[in-house]
Amino acid sequence: MDTSDEVQDFLLNGYKYYIPHVSLDCAIFGYHERQLKLLLIKRAFLDGWNLPGGYIKRTEKLVEAAERNVRERTGIDNLFLQQFKTFGDPTRLNFDDYDEEKWFEATGVRIKRDNWLLDQTVSIGFYSITDFSQSVPHPDLMSEACAWFDLDRLPKLEYDHDEMVREALHTMRIQLYHYPIGISLLPEKFTLSEIHSLYETLLGKKLDVSNFPKKLISMGLLKKLDEKRNIGAHRSPHLYTFDKARYEDALKEGLVLS
Amino acid sequence: MDTSDEVQDFLLNGYKYYIPHVSLDCAIFGYHERQLKLLLIKRAFLDGWNLPGGYIKRTEKLVEAAERNVRERTGIDNLFLQQFKTFGDPTRLNFDDYDEEKWFEATGVRIKRDNWLLDQTVSIGFYSITDFSQSVPHPDLMSEACAWFDLDRLPKLEYDHDEMVREALHTMRIQLYHYPIGISLLPEKFTLSEIHSLYETLLGKKLDVSNFPKKLISMGLLKKLDEKRNIGAHRSPHLYTFDKARYEDALKEGLVLS
Repeated sequence: MDTSDEVQDFLLNGYKYYIPHVSLDCAIFGYHERQLKLLLIKRAFLDGWNLPGGYIKRTEKLVEAAERNVRERTGIDNLFLQQFKTFGDPTRLNFDDYDEEKWFEATGVRIKRDNWLLDQTVSIGFYSITDFSQSVPHPDLMSEACAWFDLDRLPKLEYDHDEMVREALHTMRIQLYHYPIGISLLPEKFTLSEIHSLYETLLGKKLDVSNFPKKLISMGLLKKLDEKRNIGAHRSPHLYTFDKARYEDALKEGLVLS
Repeated sequence: MDTSDEVQDFLLNGYKYYIPHVSLDCAIFGYHERQLKLLLIKRAFLDGWNLPGGYIKRTEKLVEAAERNVRERTGIDNLFLQQFKTFGDPTRLNFDDYDEEKWFEATGVRIKRDNWLLDQTVSIGFYSITDFSQSVPHPDLMSEACAWFDLDRLPKLEYDHDEMVREALHTMRIQLYHYPIGISLLPEKFTLSEIHSLYETLLGKKLDVSNFPKKLISMGLLKKLDEKRNIGAHRSPHLYTFDKARYEDALKEGLVLS
């Protein structure tokens, strides 16, 4: 592999610009028309699929580092990112069988066992939800591949990333009851059936047919429009849209929705 | 100050036994009969009050480190601890005005500006709720004082600990809707009024009078006992207790309670 000076410098001196012992990993869920997916990458120097992630610059806030990492690894920008848990089991990264020759072959850089990248690392988990039909991921020079996978057909992930996905999903599902969601996942105008499907798919279970949309309406998050969608004879459901000001407030303050 | 060998070794060589750049802080809430308090400590080498916390041994899981820190700083054991957020703003600890002579005076150890303790640190926040009437905190040799403060009369805290308390409270209040609580905060047998007061105090707001207890009963978390408490003429409310098996399941699985 032809390693650029930039990558070489990162491998050898990265601890000067990044906080050593701390990384972050991002579970980016993708929704579109009743389908739920997860974004995975394959790093250039390592086997198998895992969550996109990386390190935190010494000048960055955590969420800024998460935004930058997602953008660099996948090309996706301006995502809503939410911390869900930090992972620090001492056995989570296992470099016991570290093979200097193998890394040299892969990276073109001689990395000693006491390199900063191979020391114990605590990783901060972020999750996000985006519309996968709008997001075409592209890998950067540290990644070999980057793709959306159906959530119910994920490959076995590296390290503790299976656990991270479980925890991200658990937190996302709890937070659905307390934060509004959907502005970037639905068209500008949508039917109650469409927002109902969104909640069912994200929660992974059947819901009482009009429960969630009704709550959203009673809280002033949804506005009924004087417009209908014509989807066939005798079927023309009303269209709705989000009240953006109320939505932003609810994102800040939280709410109880169930 | 007379510094023990142990403390001296920690200050100079701690990065060998602990993960550098990573700490943890614990917001320990105390409940008793409609009062909500927070546990604060005053560290020996530093000014002002802050949350108890410390570092993570290289052999520990994060939650084990949190348990040990709380036990060492406060003498409180066996607490339920839950991660709420990790804090990493680059300006969160400000050692720009580091004064070597002042630290030498306080610790008896000459700590250079490049000491591991003065480098950038990301801190993992845990919260907990205990019965403060059962928990008499005692400071260890790194702390000067340790005490319960009324939540609505907290002193200004050091670093970013005011923000940590806000975030801990916010997460705890959301999680109250999804995890059962109360086994260690109420007597073995209690009235519906007592558990109602517990939820009102923790949530910090008035609740529809029988909302939460009714939900708990309908989910099988509360069992009605064939016993009443005699609290005066014409007043003898029924006593209830937790169904422990159902309670443990709900702690693992989560539930929706609102």
